[in-house]
Amino acid sequence: MDERLKKQMDFCLEIDKEKNIFRQTSLSGYGRKENDAEHAWHMAIMAYLLREYANAEIDIGKVMIMCLIHDIVEIDAGDTYAYDEENLKTQKAREDAAKERIFSLLPEDQKKDMIALFDEFEAYETPESRFAHAMDNIQPLILNHSNEGGDWKEHDVHSDQVYGRQNKTRLGSEILFQMADELIQLNIKKGNLKK
Amino acid sequence: MDERLKKQMDFCLEIDKEKNIFRQTSLSGYGRKENDAEHAWHMAIMAYLLREYANAEIDIGKVMIMCLIHDIVEIDAGDTYAYDEENLKTQKAREDAAKERIFSLLPEDQKKDMIALFDEFEAYETPESRFAHAMDNIQPLILNHSNEGGDWKEHDVHSDQVYGRQNKTRLGSEILFQMADELIQLNIKKGNLKK
Repeated sequence: MDERLKKQMDFCLEIDKEKNIFRQTSLSGYGRKENDAEHAWHMAIMAYLLREYANAEIDIGKVMIMCLIHDIVEIDAGDTYAYDEENLKTQKAREDAAKERIFSLLPEDQKKDMIALFDEFEAYETPESRFAHAMDNIQPLILNHSNEGGDWKEHDVHSDQVYGRQNKTRLGSEILFQMADELIQLNIKKGNLKK
Repeated sequence: MDERLKKQMDFCLEIDKEKNIFRQTSLSGYGRKENDAEHAWHMAIMAYLLREYANAEIDIGKVMIMCLIHDIVEIDAGDTYAYDEENLKTQKAREDAAKERIFSLLPEDQKKDMIALFDEFEAYETPESRFAHAMDNIQPLILNHSNEGGDWKEHDVHSDQVYGRQNKTRLGSEILFQMADELIQLNIKKGNLKK
């Protein structure tokens, strides 16, 4: 096997570890917590199916690969819960170190490509990044809604925190933000989410 | 929420169940069995990173979505192990019924699109389908190789069965088939796979 292919295969094996990084979101049907690989898979399919709702024209292939790789750094850095104020402070430093170590397994050109995609996602500036973030926000929302807000109850999350996150969904898709808003209001009404 | 979006969201929630469909492949590090969603996520990233090895020019966005959705039918039909002769006989009928039920949750145009992608994958004819299949074959091979052939040992799989599957990898990528061949020979030599 030549060296380039060997590096690529080493990376492909390394990312298998993402399947062991668990999030705070429960699967539908009051299931176990989901892991990062499952979450990314779900986001990428949702991006493909909901692409008509993006605020701006998007390259859907780019959105999908962005969704698929956006949590790879958590292999080293761990999952940081969206409403965990303490760990959010150190998240960037932990993820930067992970980004350097993990993507360095790849050949240089692909390391650059992956880091560029990751950084573009984080920067929230391009239509692709904003739409990918909308998926990152909506995917756990629909699971949590299907479970009568179980994850919010477990972490004592309030509606202003949920809006703080979902307001950014609006940057990627006005229509999907309206849907998120509808679901949040419904869950407040049902007592699944504190005002 | 309008009816089109409601259908799309119903489908997005339904496919969450794919995370509960477990395969016969173990995660690296002698881990638990992996599920279909994790497998599809892994395949799609591998397709993106290894696309330079496709025998023919491919639309990588199409390969990725094909990888992501190719096992959705298993929500109803269950996973059929690649070397399970008995269940392979009924696989097509089970998967056809599942395909109709699950994709019918979507709006008509998206149902057609998903079924077209699924059928194209199954037909093994286009460069995209062949390359996606190469990923479907190589992804479990690298995990199994990393675990000293544990999955082959568990199911008493012989090398001619593995070659029967990997020979089709060749249709998508000659170079990746050569790599698969190298790994298989190495595992025969180590006693991880019976000749």
